[in-house]
Amino acid sequence: MQLSFQSNPIQTGRERFLAGCQRQATDATPVWFMRQAGHSLAAYRKLRETHDILTIARTPELCSQVSLLPITEYGVDAAVMYTDIILPFPGMGLHTELDPVRGPIVHNPVRTLQDVEALRCSTAEEATPFVLEAIGMVRRELANQQAVIGIAGGPFTLALYMIEGVPTRDYSTARTLMHQEPATWHALLEKITTVLISYVQAEVKAGADAIQIFDSNVGILGPAAYQQFVKPYAQRIFTAIKQAGGQSIHFGTGHASLLEDMAEAGGDVIGVDWRVDLADTWQALGFDRSIMGNLDPTLLLAPWETVQQGAVDILQRVQRRPGHIFNLGHAIHPGTNPDYLRRLVDTVHTYTGRQTD
Amino acid sequence: MQLSFQSNPIQTGRERFLAGCQRQATDATPVWFMRQAGHSLAAYRKLRETHDILTIARTPELCSQVSLLPITEYGVDAAVMYTDIILPFPGMGLHTELDPVRGPIVHNPVRTLQDVEALRCSTAEEATPFVLEAIGMVRRELANQQAVIGIAGGPFTLALYMIEGVPTRDYSTARTLMHQEPATWHALLEKITTVLISYVQAEVKAGADAIQIFDSNVGILGPAAYQQFVKPYAQRIFTAIKQAGGQSIHFGTGHASLLEDMAEAGGDVIGVDWRVDLADTWQALGFDRSIMGNLDPTLLLAPWETVQQGAVDILQRVQRRPGHIFNLGHAIHPGTNPDYLRRLVDTVHTYTGRQTD
Repeated sequence: MQLSFQSNPIQTGRERFLAGCQRQATDATPVWFMRQAGHSLAAYRKLRETHDILTIARTPELCSQVSLLPITEYGVDAAVMYTDIILPFPGMGLHTELDPVRGPIVHNPVRTLQDVEALRCSTAEEATPFVLEAIGMVRRELANQQAVIGIAGGPFTLALYMIEGVPTRDYSTARTLMHQEPATWHALLEKITTVLISYVQAEVKAGADAIQIFDSNVGILGPAAYQQFVKPYAQRIFTAIKQAGGQSIHFGTGHASLLEDMAEAGGDVIGVDWRVDLADTWQALGFDRSIMGNLDPTLLLAPWETVQQGAVDILQRVQRRPGHIFNLGHAIHPGTNPDYLRRLVDTVHTYTGRQTD
Repeated sequence: MQLSFQSNPIQTGRERFLAGCQRQATDATPVWFMRQAGHSLAAYRKLRETHDILTIARTPELCSQVSLLPITEYGVDAAVMYTDIILPFPGMGLHTELDPVRGPIVHNPVRTLQDVEALRCSTAEEATPFVLEAIGMVRRELANQQAVIGIAGGPFTLALYMIEGVPTRDYSTARTLMHQEPATWHALLEKITTVLISYVQAEVKAGADAIQIFDSNVGILGPAAYQQFVKPYAQRIFTAIKQAGGQSIHFGTGHASLLEDMAEAGGDVIGVDWRVDLADTWQALGFDRSIMGNLDPTLLLAPWETVQQGAVDILQRVQRRPGHIFNLGHAIHPGTNPDYLRRLVDTVHTYTGRQTD
């Protein structure tokens, strides 16, 4: 089963991924998965018996080892760094905890202009050298065979976490502050942006080919609020990635009504969740960016035939247009069968033209 | 401050609301608020000191009294019944609790085909006579001065609550069941639809002018999943409302990518949240339905000038096209200043043409 295609020279995973970011021809559609270095892997689950998430993320040997697992286990074209978007928080003076059930907790949440003024803008080299060291290790290990993707939180999502303190349903504390105290909001976003620019540029310098910005919660906003309170900051972060020489992926969820603005803010690749039709969305964006996605992660909990059909539906709609990077619409669910992930990579590669090697 | 307009005869609130549902000319844009009968009202907060939510909802005297408060307090054009979408659950055999912090809890969640088969399809008259009695009381009290809006949960949202049992972040248990056991899913939706049809038709018969279907969580789905797993059931429910002679409002949140399908499923009025531009969305829907919304509820926590500007922005974009019903994009936040709600109703009415009476 294969789409008709023009035969292209065989590429490494890294070449395939980078060509995908630049809307150039590939020998097959590049593929990786959000949270591929995670619970679906037996070796990771074993490591978690003795180490918590932040310890692994802060220990370059462990972090690089986990980040590399999916390359051999699943055959993906890129290694994404095992990490959490709150890693820069302690360097800013935020007392942070990662609760396994509730998610990220900030014990001294940001609520006033004084709170914002107290935040430090440490550089990535000062605050998170372990992130950069782990990227370097993965880069050296992979040489040029697969791409390396570094990640960072988006400015809106990080602001939400800082303001709310604990994960909430509708982020009303943060959204209220945004409307009630716009000066405080803008001062906070200014500091977050400074920290993020240092962070993403250092990641590229350490060896990351691309940075994915996870502004996962941005979909709570409408276009007018996004334009006023987020877009200018996102723009500066994407410019910084480009200046450092990295590719960028701009990801959100529930963001169907923001996609045009988010694309304007930046990103060589726009990441979409499973809620939208990928082909229609790409067309609406005028095909002037690459697009990443967007199989529903819950579909992988169904029988294999359903998974395969879901993947083929997306690939058929895209018709090998250069610039599609296959992924799920959001992170892999913890209960996902690792064999399905292996078969899914193979399906994407084979169906889109890779010769049996 | 007023839009230029063609002067129309003065209408009652009910006439204004019903004309809005049917895209007919009005003397001013009709307005009401989701959760207007709630925490923003001092009299309601006092009642809650001695009565819990379900007790009020199940006691026609209390329920009708609370539902009527916003008519005099805010001057809205419609009374929406104080209720909760889980009211039909006990009649189906579900042991239900409304936890003030966590939300609705089902102690015997639906997980298997056997669980679905055990559900009863009671009629609204058998299971929830108090809902119908309260509607009758509000109808008699208002006579024809204001409209009466009954509510019901949407089929997808009710299924989520039944399957998950406790509110979760991404509803993965329900979405997994949907993909893994489609036969169980469809059997459940079949029963929910039967119950909802009886419920909405009885509400209209009891005196409701319109029914708002809250499929608030439907935005977690993409178009393909909505078409397969929800749309046929939603269609039957909207047909049933029409057959009973009621107007209908189809509401969701985070549903930008589903709006076309939801409009096809039904609704005289499509309710949109604050995440989309109302005017653009209306145009995308071809203006062949009325539209309701969509001021961001968190905006009402900002200074009055910000609230007013937000409302005027929407009204200016709509330019008095017949068929706009003004509302917030979702429920009123508990901390909202009631005076702002009063002024907001007045702003909408005055700005869109109501003569000083």
